[in-house]
Amino acid sequence: MSRTISLAVIPGDGIGQEVVAQGLKVLAAVLPQDVKLETKHYELGAKRWHATGETLTDAETEQLRQHDAILLGAIGDPSVPSGVLERGLLLKLRFAFDHFVNLRPSKLFPNTETPLAGRPAIDFVVVREGTEGPYVGNGGSIRTGTPAEVANEVSVNTAYGVERVVRDAYERAQARPRKKLTLVHKNNVLVHAGHLWKNTFDRIGEEYPDVTTDYLHVDAATIFLVSDPERFDVIVTDNLFGDIITDLAAAVSGGIGLAASGNINPTGDFPSMFEPVHGSAPDIAGTGKADPTATVLSVALMLRHLGLEAEATRVEDAVTADLAERSGARSTEEIGDTLATRVSG
Amino acid sequence: MSRTISLAVIPGDGIGQEVVAQGLKVLAAVLPQDVKLETKHYELGAKRWHATGETLTDAETEQLRQHDAILLGAIGDPSVPSGVLERGLLLKLRFAFDHFVNLRPSKLFPNTETPLAGRPAIDFVVVREGTEGPYVGNGGSIRTGTPAEVANEVSVNTAYGVERVVRDAYERAQARPRKKLTLVHKNNVLVHAGHLWKNTFDRIGEEYPDVTTDYLHVDAATIFLVSDPERFDVIVTDNLFGDIITDLAAAVSGGIGLAASGNINPTGDFPSMFEPVHGSAPDIAGTGKADPTATVLSVALMLRHLGLEAEATRVEDAVTADLAERSGARSTEEIGDTLATRVSG
Ligand SMILES: CC(C)[C@H](C(=O)O)[C@@H](O)C(=O)O
Ligand SMILES: CC(C)[C@H](C(=O)O)[C@@H](O)C(=O)O
Repeated sequence: MSRTISLAVIPGDGIGQEVVAQGLKVLAAVLPQDVKLETKHYELGAKRWHATGETLTDAETEQLRQHDAILLGAIGDPSVPSGVLERGLLLKLRFAFDHFVNLRPSKLFPNTETPLAGRPAIDFVVVREGTEGPYVGNGGSIRTGTPAEVANEVSVNTAYGVERVVRDAYERAQARPRKKLTLVHKNNVLVHAGHLWKNTFDRIGEEYPDVTTDYLHVDAATIFLVSDPERFDVIVTDNLFGDIITDLAAAVSGGIGLAASGNINPTGDFPSMFEPVHGSAPDIAGTGKADPTATVLSVALMLRHLGLEAEATRVEDAVTADLAERSGARSTEEIGDTLATRVSG
Repeated sequence: MSRTISLAVIPGDGIGQEVVAQGLKVLAAVLPQDVKLETKHYELGAKRWHATGETLTDAETEQLRQHDAILLGAIGDPSVPSGVLERGLLLKLRFAFDHFVNLRPSKLFPNTETPLAGRPAIDFVVVREGTEGPYVGNGGSIRTGTPAEVANEVSVNTAYGVERVVRDAYERAQARPRKKLTLVHKNNVLVHAGHLWKNTFDRIGEEYPDVTTDYLHVDAATIFLVSDPERFDVIVTDNLFGDIITDLAAAVSGGIGLAASGNINPTGDFPSMFEPVHGSAPDIAGTGKADPTATVLSVALMLRHLGLEAEATRVEDAVTADLAERSGARSTEEIGDTLATRVSG
């Protein structure tokens, strides 16, 4: 009995192309014989936008939907006005495929740099809501460009949206040894959204009596992320706060070159999408300096999501071993080759 | 010719009482003979709310308005529902007195703890907008408490509000040796507000050709605050992003026990308000463990705002010397006494 994984690949811009190539290499190397991989590349991003003015057509969205999963490199280029590709492509996919769980693990691997003194034992995961908050695009301005301009941005939060992501976070917390879940919000100022988040968090928590809970305002959370990151196990938070604290979490746990993420639709109704947290880094694109490890770790998240738990662990173990033993600067390709060898060994 | 400073004092909750007492002690010690100090205490906060259900009456607001400045300790207690005192008292004052410049300097003093390896030379100031953004209270929910609830929060940004704070930040950047100003926003997602902020930043910048400018998304800014905080000189940002990054800034530069702030109305139409960034810390209230240094540094910001530049510097120098020479644990009062002696010496 064999299985086929149909994977959509969106390398995107800048270093996206290079890191995705290595991610695919490791993926091919780790898959067991009875799992066949079919990939289809979608050339979306800055170049395409310059050529056609399009970011993502309805037909492409429909094609992408047919795949089992999506691997994305990075989107963005200084030549494209800020927001065009982010909203027209990356966020459009997250919304179209209802990626309500934006999963971002943070782990301080051995032999990696952290700006923190004392190398704390960092090992937590952020469950960032992915389909609501101020990301919904529900803003606008009047008298734009005049001294009387008013520009608003609306954060939209629904019981439906909050409950499903909070429940997912409780499930993940319950499955971990420490079983601790922290809600991060700002319910002393954003009282309406905060009330919804906190009430939902407390109510769903009654179904998980073995999970220890905690609440932090987002500003306080940034303090603890640098002063006591060991206190965190699973964090659940909204789209914008999640965006901010996961970059900080990446920075303290080995840097953005190692931070993986999954844009997950846990229902399976739509393909989930896996991408490194880092951007397209146009300044180093083409130099072979990009670290593909974050993409490889995103591939591990994808494998786990697709039910290939043993393979996911093999990839993660390979990264751990590789980081522990590495020395000197290595090119994007060298890192990919080493990891591919390790997982197939 | 003598001058009188009429100061409103709001000690507030928890350690607010203790730290404000020390701040006043240092203030009294540093003022020259020809400056008279008149203080009036306002007992606002949790106790008052429990007793009367009131946070701040119109009559009190009117009385407070008559003062030259306000010194505030801390507001908040676990016995009061989240948001009641924050919105009914602290934010109400910031809005009533149009405190559009929320000034938060970050400096890593000698002999202080930082979670960062390598003790970077941190010395920057955040100019946080104080009267707009999602802090305006323009949110609400429908079907509250039901599975069909929708809770919205609106971030309101005006050309009027953005321009005045951006201009203030350029002035501050121009007055500093490095003359560098960084705008922090999220204009790839919050495109309407982001457009207003970025356009205003660029346009006003033409009037300050000697100021170097830079733009960072808020998520990237948190990375640099831990990996390269030396790159910052002056940061200007909106109310919510400013809330988040100034707590992080405090954490990396000696901790929240040292972080001072001024809620400033630069026009002088209303009294400005000075307060430590830390909260009321009910867990250590009454133990004498609270560090009054952040309050004392807030007093320095107040002195500078009132035109007493030499006295402001004397207080800051006293803090620097005190931190450099201290050893062992000291009580709230001991620190206050030492600083008072230093500034009058
Ligand atoms: C590129 C941007 C739209 C995106 C976000 O804000 O979600 C990125 O910062 C991320 O965290 O994936
Ligand atoms: C207490 C709270 C309302 C306040 C804020 O969010 O502004 C505090 O965090 C601060 O930074 O002064």
